[in-house]
Amino acid sequence: MLIESNPGTSVHADAKIQKLAFAIDRLQRRGAIRPLQNVFSKTHPADLAAVLDSMPDGRVAPIFLAVPEAVMAAEALTEVSTRVRDLILAEASIERMVPILEHMPPDELTDLIQSLAPEVADQLMSAMAKGSQAEVEDLLQYAPGTAGGIMTTDFSALPDDVTVQEAIEAVRDREDVEIIFYLYVTDAEGRLTGVISLRQLLLAQPGSLLREVMNSRIIKVQTDTPQETVANLVDKYRLLAVPVVDDDNLLLGVVTVDDVIEVMESETTKEMLRMAGTNESEILTQSPLKIARIRLPWLLAAFVGGLAATGVIQRYESILAEVLALSAFLPVVMGMAGNVGVQSATVAVRGLATGSLQLRHIRSVLFKEFRVGLLLGIFYGLVLGAFGWFVFGSAELGEVVGLTIMVNMTGAAMLAIALPMLFQRLGTDPAIATGPFVTTAIDVLGVLNYFAIATAIIDFAGVPTVTG
Amino acid sequence: MLIESNPGTSVHADAKIQKLAFAIDRLQRRGAIRPLQNVFSKTHPADLAAVLDSMPDGRVAPIFLAVPEAVMAAEALTEVSTRVRDLILAEASIERMVPILEHMPPDELTDLIQSLAPEVADQLMSAMAKGSQAEVEDLLQYAPGTAGGIMTTDFSALPDDVTVQEAIEAVRDREDVEIIFYLYVTDAEGRLTGVISLRQLLLAQPGSLLREVMNSRIIKVQTDTPQETVANLVDKYRLLAVPVVDDDNLLLGVVTVDDVIEVMESETTKEMLRMAGTNESEILTQSPLKIARIRLPWLLAAFVGGLAATGVIQRYESILAEVLALSAFLPVVMGMAGNVGVQSATVAVRGLATGSLQLRHIRSVLFKEFRVGLLLGIFYGLVLGAFGWFVFGSAELGEVVGLTIMVNMTGAAMLAIALPMLFQRLGTDPAIATGPFVTTAIDVLGVLNYFAIATAIIDFAGVPTVTG
Repeated sequence: MLIESNPGTSVHADAKIQKLAFAIDRLQRRGAIRPLQNVFSKTHPADLAAVLDSMPDGRVAPIFLAVPEAVMAAEALTEVSTRVRDLILAEASIERMVPILEHMPPDELTDLIQSLAPEVADQLMSAMAKGSQAEVEDLLQYAPGTAGGIMTTDFSALPDDVTVQEAIEAVRDREDVEIIFYLYVTDAEGRLTGVISLRQLLLAQPGSLLREVMNSRIIKVQTDTPQETVANLVDKYRLLAVPVVDDDNLLLGVVTVDDVIEVMESETTKEMLRMAGTNESEILTQSPLKIARIRLPWLLAAFVGGLAATGVIQRYESILAEVLALSAFLPVVMGMAGNVGVQSATVAVRGLATGSLQLRHIRSVLFKEFRVGLLLGIFYGLVLGAFGWFVFGSAELGEVVGLTIMVNMTGAAMLAIALPMLFQRLGTDPAIATGPFVTTAIDVLGVLNYFAIATAIIDFAGVPTVTG
Repeated sequence: MLIESNPGTSVHADAKIQKLAFAIDRLQRRGAIRPLQNVFSKTHPADLAAVLDSMPDGRVAPIFLAVPEAVMAAEALTEVSTRVRDLILAEASIERMVPILEHMPPDELTDLIQSLAPEVADQLMSAMAKGSQAEVEDLLQYAPGTAGGIMTTDFSALPDDVTVQEAIEAVRDREDVEIIFYLYVTDAEGRLTGVISLRQLLLAQPGSLLREVMNSRIIKVQTDTPQETVANLVDKYRLLAVPVVDDDNLLLGVVTVDDVIEVMESETTKEMLRMAGTNESEILTQSPLKIARIRLPWLLAAFVGGLAATGVIQRYESILAEVLALSAFLPVVMGMAGNVGVQSATVAVRGLATGSLQLRHIRSVLFKEFRVGLLLGIFYGLVLGAFGWFVFGSAELGEVVGLTIMVNMTGAAMLAIALPMLFQRLGTDPAIATGPFVTTAIDVLGVLNYFAIATAIIDFAGVPTVTG
């Protein structure tokens, strides 16, 4: 939810937060109530949250409970880290917390209740006013990650037979602090029929009915619309808010642009972590066992690839025995293909996520990646070939490693750009599927190619074993 | 800039865009002007942009030039891909383009002019009206990636001695389509002194002066404030717009939340590409040579690490000669440490970017990562050890590879979480610095550890060479 008080407050950079934290901490320790309240009254809730986040465990609750205004405490509570929130909930009494919680926006309150242990959540819920209870219970039924899960029920809607003049007065009379930029219009049954901006309201004839002046083609979402879709709509159509309706078109809530910004941040985090074979639960948990369990599957896929490569090398052991130096080049030859693969896969996954890469361009993309991989492969092939020749004293060894790294890097680049597009095509998340498959394929194909080139170039009967 | 017309338009999903594209294409080919204009009038500019993006090269310009309204054409032009934009600019005459360009928001127009070849830009500029020319020239002086570079000069500001009633009338009288939610207030010299929301304006006494009712503590930025900082402020304080001032506090422009969403998307792309050792120029260019040059340095750092590993292996070649199977395990042992390193580094880089990971937690974070790495290392150590023992028939070989992968994975996890934090501490971008350093360190230390463990466990004088 957007807070009306926001535009008019000064900015606190990190250094200022530290200074503010120091002052608040000292005043609270001294018990200087009046000066402390004076400082709080000049502080933005988001800055108060930053101050609390910077405090050691023992100081969090005393300082939070010194905030005189429940509204400000509630706003700060929506912004603090989970550590600070848990410390506050553990130390504050239910009687102290309830008035603060009742001032939280319904969507934030629901998120908080959802994250608590069931017995604590029940205790808090039963202590709250019936109205807040009902709002939270309404919102609890929607799955997290959907429009219903992120919407607020605190929005402005008026029936379509109200006049413009009456609507302006209604906006004036609303007591809460929510910013109003769109006024939603419903029919007698509460079904969404239109929308009008505050400015359009000011421009309209005071005596007109809302249904005569509203826009009736509305961008709206359902309660079960995924939050990514909501974010994409807000981004694409440059909206400040999107109304959320049920199957009968009843207006149930609104997702505002600030919530969308949060969704985008968390989607980014998800995408990056998925690419690396882990997920956001890792960031939320403190348990190494849980984290290890999250990371294990992706590593397992790569592990199988590694074992397959081991098997291939074992089959060619007689060659290794003759030219031992071939094994010294294994890590660099395999690693460079893997590295260029990471670069191409990242470009592909990100391009697919933002839409800059499209499946129908696959042929031109593959050709471009072929040329990029080949250029890089030629460069590193020449350097590694020269290294093999001069340091190990064998032109043939130089040829083998140079040629291998060139072919492997070119192939890895093409494979790593093509696989994410293939997964997208198959309806699988490219971010999650790409890593293990690209890694495994590059490992196994890379080793096979290494020995194929070695066998073709080195005359194993005649050449003496190269020992550095 | 936010467009007032947005809230009231219907949504087009991908399938609908295709249908719309088909209809528009057919009508334009037939020359059915009236029905075509009818379709355009019902289409959102963002959807028209999506339609143009889906067209083959030859159809883009004819369809774009069939759009009757310059305003709509201008809005669509701000949303299309660079391919479509370049096609349009290449085919449309200057006389056709100028009226459309003059309807673009000044910030978008400046971005467009900046991306053109200088002679084309000059031609267009000299054909435009003096007012648009001056706006673009004003904006051109600010560096891309700063508040000045992304702000619009199209904002609402009024002197502080205007009455509330006069302000409401001024809002009513503004002709352009920009959404107004904050009205900025300046003194007689144009210095920013306050801000008031449209709703606060409605609530105030009509006869009051703006300076009596405005909020005078304002979150504002300078023209050279980096765009990431602007995005962080909008995110943290849940703002819809931030005013941009110069050193003398003169109000020069406004950055709106939709531009911030674009900034966040591009910052995410940058962060992900930087981690993989490439950058966003790769996405913008079509030249494989340029892309190869962008990717080369990061690969070079990894290459040096690989060569160092080669040197280490070469030094231990006598050991490899005795136990050839050791070389078969090189890729899997090195690869798994690298993979767990990627996971930990991603968690670290993302955590530092979102603030969920803080430098002062380094000790507890390291300890957590130690336990995660150890758990994963024990799991894969046992599996690989058993594999080595049973498949290669040597308990000692099993011990060596099992122990190595355990130690290497644990070390890699700790190294990969610690290095990004160290880089952050030193003021270097963790995303750009982490990759090559983590890779190189894991490669070299991993190989050294492999041979140290092998030398300690295997009695090289007595054991016969293991050959699969």
